[in-house]
Amino acid sequence: MERPRFIIEAKEAESMAQEAGLTVPQLLPTLVKSAQGLARPPISNFHVGAVGLSSDGRIFIGANLEFPGIPLHHSVHAEQFLVTNAAVHGGRRLTHLAVSDAPCGHCRQFLQELRNAQEIQILITSSQEDPIFKPLSSKLPDPFGPYDLLDEGTPLLLEIQDNGLGFLGNLKNGFVENLENNESLLKIAALEAANRSHAPYSGCPSGVALMDVDGKVYKGSYMESAAYNPSMGPVQAALVAYLASGGDGYGGIVAAVLVEKEGVVVRQEDSARLMLKAVSPKCELRVFHCCSGSNGCIKAET
Amino acid sequence: MERPRFIIEAKEAESMAQEAGLTVPQLLPTLVKSAQGLARPPISNFHVGAVGLSSDGRIFIGANLEFPGIPLHHSVHAEQFLVTNAAVHGGRRLTHLAVSDAPCGHCRQFLQELRNAQEIQILITSSQEDPIFKPLSSKLPDPFGPYDLLDEGTPLLLEIQDNGLGFLGNLKNGFVENLENNESLLKIAALEAANRSHAPYSGCPSGVALMDVDGKVYKGSYMESAAYNPSMGPVQAALVAYLASGGDGYGGIVAAVLVEKEGVVVRQEDSARLMLKAVSPKCELRVFHCCSGSNGCIKAET
Ligand SMILES: [Zn+2]
Ligand SMILES: [Zn+2]
Repeated sequence: MERPRFIIEAKEAESMAQEAGLTVPQLLPTLVKSAQGLARPPISNFHVGAVGLSSDGRIFIGANLEFPGIPLHHSVHAEQFLVTNAAVHGGRRLTHLAVSDAPCGHCRQFLQELRNAQEIQILITSSQEDPIFKPLSSKLPDPFGPYDLLDEGTPLLLEIQDNGLGFLGNLKNGFVENLENNESLLKIAALEAANRSHAPYSGCPSGVALMDVDGKVYKGSYMESAAYNPSMGPVQAALVAYLASGGDGYGGIVAAVLVEKEGVVVRQEDSARLMLKAVSPKCELRVFHCCSGSNGCIKAET
Repeated sequence: MERPRFIIEAKEAESMAQEAGLTVPQLLPTLVKSAQGLARPPISNFHVGAVGLSSDGRIFIGANLEFPGIPLHHSVHAEQFLVTNAAVHGGRRLTHLAVSDAPCGHCRQFLQELRNAQEIQILITSSQEDPIFKPLSSKLPDPFGPYDLLDEGTPLLLEIQDNGLGFLGNLKNGFVENLENNESLLKIAALEAANRSHAPYSGCPSGVALMDVDGKVYKGSYMESAAYNPSMGPVQAALVAYLASGGDGYGGIVAAVLVEKEGVVVRQEDSARLMLKAVSPKCELRVFHCCSGSNGCIKAET
């Protein structure tokens, strides 16, 4: 069996399109069916696939995830998987999106976090009418979004973000004392994820790093929505990174670290624990609190 | 200070409208500002108010709720508060809705659970243009919703629902043995809430009953969205019932019972515990598992 593919490089996308006598955007809907095959929806059995084109020419794939045993708000929709996949791999802007089914309101809202969201061209392959690309603005008119709450200079989702977080201590006897140690590795990875977290609404960035049985590390950044509820949790984001790298069963995840600030209004710890317990009961979660800006707050050098 | 009002009876609504020289729908936007005053958004400080007209002439009010210390997907939007308020009080159909701000995608999706959702007339009081009523269909074109997943006969949200749940045992030595006992009272109330729960997508209905310091009981039914994530948890629904009855601080809630089926794919227990711990740390939660249909499964008679 071929390893599932969640990214197609720009060159390959172009040659695939050329071979099929299509433009790259026209290629997207032809890939939706195989994207649906990557979904993991054990509750609904409703397989959703999403295929998106980044401004750098890469194609990012997404599929929906559902997690038995916990409430449905932990689910990840195909469109959210796709955006997270792009975020993990440094995608900077989404121009086109082909999906198997009409994006739900939750996803139309989540997509508002992207720069020029309303111009993203969306095609629904199961559309009754001729499936054609239409802008997101036609799917969520009069939107509520970042522009209602943020300054113009604030980075949006997929834009370069550095939250200036670190750990208290110094480089000698601080948190980097023992780099060969798995926990230190995960701690630094989770801090990096927290530094890239998109949390302009609450000011409570966070990040998760997961380790699989082979010692490979996967990072997930918490991503906030202006409408709060559609926000993407850091564990979910890290699971997307794991799956997009070819990870298979969630049970292969054996260790996890969450980094967040202490005593914040949006605290992920309990929810992260609940989520990890549901997907990989043996995985141990450790939580570290980070600082920002103050004296003695050291950012990991990587 | 006047007690906050979350319902206006049909007769009163009519006379208020008449006095102001308005129709009842025209009255709704004039009430939005006071609805905003009922919001409890300690994270965003963004006060959202919603005022809706039911087909029976009653006006239902909603306001947004945010809960510090836990992830943002636990938040309740004003539109969700309003629908829950209507559900608690037997409202059957929403015809008009006035809101202070553009409903987010999450809410436009949640509203899809209502019969003839796309015909609900929505007015945004902060709209730049002349604020007028427009159908929900213009706010969420090409929707994903119940019609994509359910048979036509399935009851939608706000329609009469009976999930046929009960407890194993018999009336003599079963769960009703000790009715004067607070826990039995809460257990029966939570079962009633579970029986009215709207969970056609997962088949995992659940209900919560809360008791305040005065021994008053508040019921909340879990309400599912076809898009999963916008679903409204049973604790959130019960908190809405508490607030809509004039409850003030969440700390006044001292006991809680959750009723759900055992071993189901959408299990509320851990999430309910997390949520209650955040709002009322002293409140004790007890969980009871119900049965459905099988031999010896007894529904509470009320
Ligand atoms: Zn969606
Ligand atoms: Zn909303």
